[in-house]
Amino acid sequence: MIQMTLIQIDNYGPWTVTPRPRNESDLQILQSELFADVQRQFAMKKGLVFFTRFDNMLAITNGLDTEDHLRIQRSIRNRYPITISMGVGAAETPHEAQKLATIALQNKGGAQQKERKEILAVDSLAENSENYVQVAHVDINSVTETLTDIESAFDTSFMVNKAQHYLMSKLIKKGGLVFFIGGDNFMCPCNGMSAEEIEETLKELYDEIGIGLKAGIGKGNNAEDAAYMADIGLENIRECNNEKWIDIVEKEYKD
Amino acid sequence: MIQMTLIQIDNYGPWTVTPRPRNESDLQILQSELFADVQRQFAMKKGLVFFTRFDNMLAITNGLDTEDHLRIQRSIRNRYPITISMGVGAAETPHEAQKLATIALQNKGGAQQKERKEILAVDSLAENSENYVQVAHVDINSVTETLTDIESAFDTSFMVNKAQHYLMSKLIKKGGLVFFIGGDNFMCPCNGMSAEEIEETLKELYDEIGIGLKAGIGKGNNAEDAAYMADIGLENIRECNNEKWIDIVEKEYKD
Amino acid sequence: MIQMTLIQIDNYGPWTVTPRPRNESDLQILQSELFADVQRQFAMKKGLVFFTRFDNMLAITNGLDTEDHLRIQRSIRNRYPITISMGVGAAETPHEAQKLATIALQNKGGAQQKERKEILAVDSLAENSENYVQVAHVDINSVTETLTDIESAFDTSFMVNKAQHYLMSKLIKKGGLVFFIGGDNFMCPCNGMSAEEIEETLKELYDEIGIGLKAGIGKGNNAEDAAYMADIGLENIRECNNEKWIDIVEKEYKD
Amino acid sequence: MIQMTLIQIDNYGPWTVTPRPRNESDLQILQSELFADVQRQFAMKKGLVFFTRFDNMLAITNGLDTEDHLRIQRSIRNRYPITISMGVGAAETPHEAQKLATIALQNKGGAQQKERKEILAVDSLAENSENYVQVAHVDINSVTETLTDIESAFDTSFMVNKAQHYLMSKLIKKGGLVFFIGGDNFMCPCNGMSAEEIEETLKELYDEIGIGLKAGIGKGNNAEDAAYMADIGLENIRECNNEKWIDIVEKEYKD
Repeated sequence: MIQMTLIQIDNYGPWTVTPRPRNESDLQILQSELFADVQRQFAMKKGLVFFTRFDNMLAITNGLDTEDHLRIQRSIRNRYPITISMGVGAAETPHEAQKLATIALQNKGGAQQKERKEILAVDSLAENSENYVQVAHVDINSVTETLTDIESAFDTSFMVNKAQHYLMSKLIKKGGLVFFIGGDNFMCPCNGMSAEEIEETLKELYDEIGIGLKAGIGKGNNAEDAAYMADIGLENIRECNNEKWIDIVEKEYKD
Repeated sequence: MIQMTLIQIDNYGPWTVTPRPRNESDLQILQSELFADVQRQFAMKKGLVFFTRFDNMLAITNGLDTEDHLRIQRSIRNRYPITISMGVGAAETPHEAQKLATIALQNKGGAQQKERKEILAVDSLAENSENYVQVAHVDINSVTETLTDIESAFDTSFMVNKAQHYLMSKLIKKGGLVFFIGGDNFMCPCNGMSAEEIEETLKELYDEIGIGLKAGIGKGNNAEDAAYMADIGLENIRECNNEKWIDIVEKEYKD
Repeated sequence: MIQMTLIQIDNYGPWTVTPRPRNESDLQILQSELFADVQRQFAMKKGLVFFTRFDNMLAITNGLDTEDHLRIQRSIRNRYPITISMGVGAAETPHEAQKLATIALQNKGGAQQKERKEILAVDSLAENSENYVQVAHVDINSVTETLTDIESAFDTSFMVNKAQHYLMSKLIKKGGLVFFIGGDNFMCPCNGMSAEEIEETLKELYDEIGIGLKAGIGKGNNAEDAAYMADIGLENIRECNNEKWIDIVEKEYKD
Repeated sequence: MIQMTLIQIDNYGPWTVTPRPRNESDLQILQSELFADVQRQFAMKKGLVFFTRFDNMLAITNGLDTEDHLRIQRSIRNRYPITISMGVGAAETPHEAQKLATIALQNKGGAQQKERKEILAVDSLAENSENYVQVAHVDINSVTETLTDIESAFDTSFMVNKAQHYLMSKLIKKGGLVFFIGGDNFMCPCNGMSAEEIEETLKELYDEIGIGLKAGIGKGNNAEDAAYMADIGLENIRECNNEKWIDIVEKEYKD
């Protein structure tokens, strides 16, 4: 099972314009530092956070328990002008896990209700023996040569966003998720999807919009291990000149 | 004229996998802290940076000269394991400005050429008397009520990304740019576009995908002032219950 | 036993002036961000880091093992232009523990030897059943009323430094350590010292230089718990109008 | 004239223990990140901040005006759970400048008065034509060989603190200041002191406690330039094997 956590800034929208709109640069710094900060804390226990919408972040958190989450909430409260609430859910697919996490938190009140503050709503946690994370690290073939060094920076960004939109549309139907992680890279939690399904998805996308993607697929007991295995898979594909669509690597745990 | 700067991490892709893939959480922290850092430095002079692809960031930099850029490059070199190159361009439209900035940098070598390091390539700077920035701060109507508090976190993220993709497709044709700035918010540099064109764009998008957007439009001599005016415009629309599509506010400078 | 870790930036001095002196402000930012960063990582496992000399930091690390230390070293390598080496030692007194940690690292080479890089030298680790931390949180009585709001900022700083110097001179002889933690506060690891010895030290110091100190003394299995108990002790003294010199609080662990 | 700014966290002491003591690691992170943050902002305009007591920081701020200070205060308010007040003063000696800055702020209320919040109290600013900063960058001769690689980390730290205490005692009488900047380094604003006085001070200190110091002395129109010149001076002394006590370098400004 994959365990996911939704991290939501409490009552953030209203705060950004009270008493009058706060400087956009300050908000951008606040958001990205908050992301870096929770990332570092979750990463200490082998979790992985995606910035998502910044005021709402999603994380793979297999191996982290209730106390771990509470400690992170407290740490943020002590150092930021805002607080965060969290929902946690575990399920067979990433989409289901984040949905359970979201519902658990929504049941405690709306994101902009003043009285809802620093909630930790746990729908379910993955048992130790159940921990299983599958992620695909997807990138665009030869992006530097075909886009970065040729097109304008914004046009490249547009193409990357286009790839993301189509990839999201396809994976969401199969229980998978897509997170942009910078450059031309996407991290896709995809428990429950077979290698064939993933390869098929990339081929479809290429046929539809002409953007060639490849996917290193990693499996492990936690986000860190799975993501690292996915990176190894991606390197394997690069080494054979992108002649494969996908490559799967599974972390072996010694007894 | 709007002046834009492309900020590019030198030879970043290869670095992330040398000698073997670096931890994804570390890369995420590095990228978001670098963004926060350059943001703070550009913001001291009323510039505004967009994270774009993180390894390639775009910024509105009216009012910053060559020395300002060099100081930021040096500051990054002293505190990060990577260096940054920059291109700068000024033009009548944001798309043209970032294109000039990109070309200036591309002419100095590719993003993954080892010998290209810490380049500052200035195509053009806006003269003091020419500084003029127009940005639209766009958000989704009632996103908390219709998405955040009802849909799963990822589904909301998908809808926001969808809005971004369609908005990008439309504005890019008119010389405008779209940057996601978190939540359900986009900042769109749009020098040269009329209020009617912007309103028309939002209406078209609503007809096509059913997502209702509004835009506060701000004008000023630099990014900070223009963005703040755009925020005021957005507040004006909220105060009249989203009954308007757009609202324009122009910063008046006293002699 | 108390376990202490020495964290040393590799070959830092030469780096700061190569190829020419780096901007002092950049070095200050680098050092303080590095300190904040390792602090956050050690704190995730209930350790506590003191900035000490910034290029050499000391930490109480009961509960952290070899892998925890290695992960922190790797994380720093991935995000900073410098690397860190560490030595670890466990002993009955803090002074002895940091000495073992230092010797272990010194045996691997000098701080400015180019070939010595990212060493982890473990002299000894405290067993789980042996973990025991005693710290005194010391502050100056009524510093705001008698110094901050009356004297110049530098003169207050001078008085605080003076108190530190005398406190260091006294505690070092008894196996204790003193770390400035901001304001008028010192954190003093003091395993092996009795309450009477600590009280006696504060009285002596008052007789010699006329600065009145108080000490909350905390005991626990790790730095976080011990420091928190010490804070509670300090609050207890404040509540009785500083009429006591010391107050001891011990964390009780439930089975 | 040298211009100095006192940066004080508003009502910080009470905040750290409300509603109960906050985690020491969180406070350490908050303080050091705040320092790094204001440093980066002041440094953009060639100022230089010293961490001093962290809740009270002193900065050399020649070249920064009232608006610059206000912008920094606002930026901090938007991103931290605390706010900062500032006092600014300009005088012929650093001690007098920081005293004027302190008095200006003290006149607006005590550091722990709840109603005093985000004050900017300007006693005086240095005129452009008057800007003049003299700083001595002082370090301990051969500290790595004689202390770091031989003594325990804490004993070295004790020696450095001892040197600081004696240096402070001496310079304060002559209108100079001493700030520890990490390692074995001190930055000493010393407008009004002659080279002979500084050399004499170092010799006295060596006679009294046997610690050999050297000083690069820099002069410029702002903190950045003066500190850089001081670094050059220090390099000059190292190049002649520490055979000189001091070396003076003055920045020349071209018309």
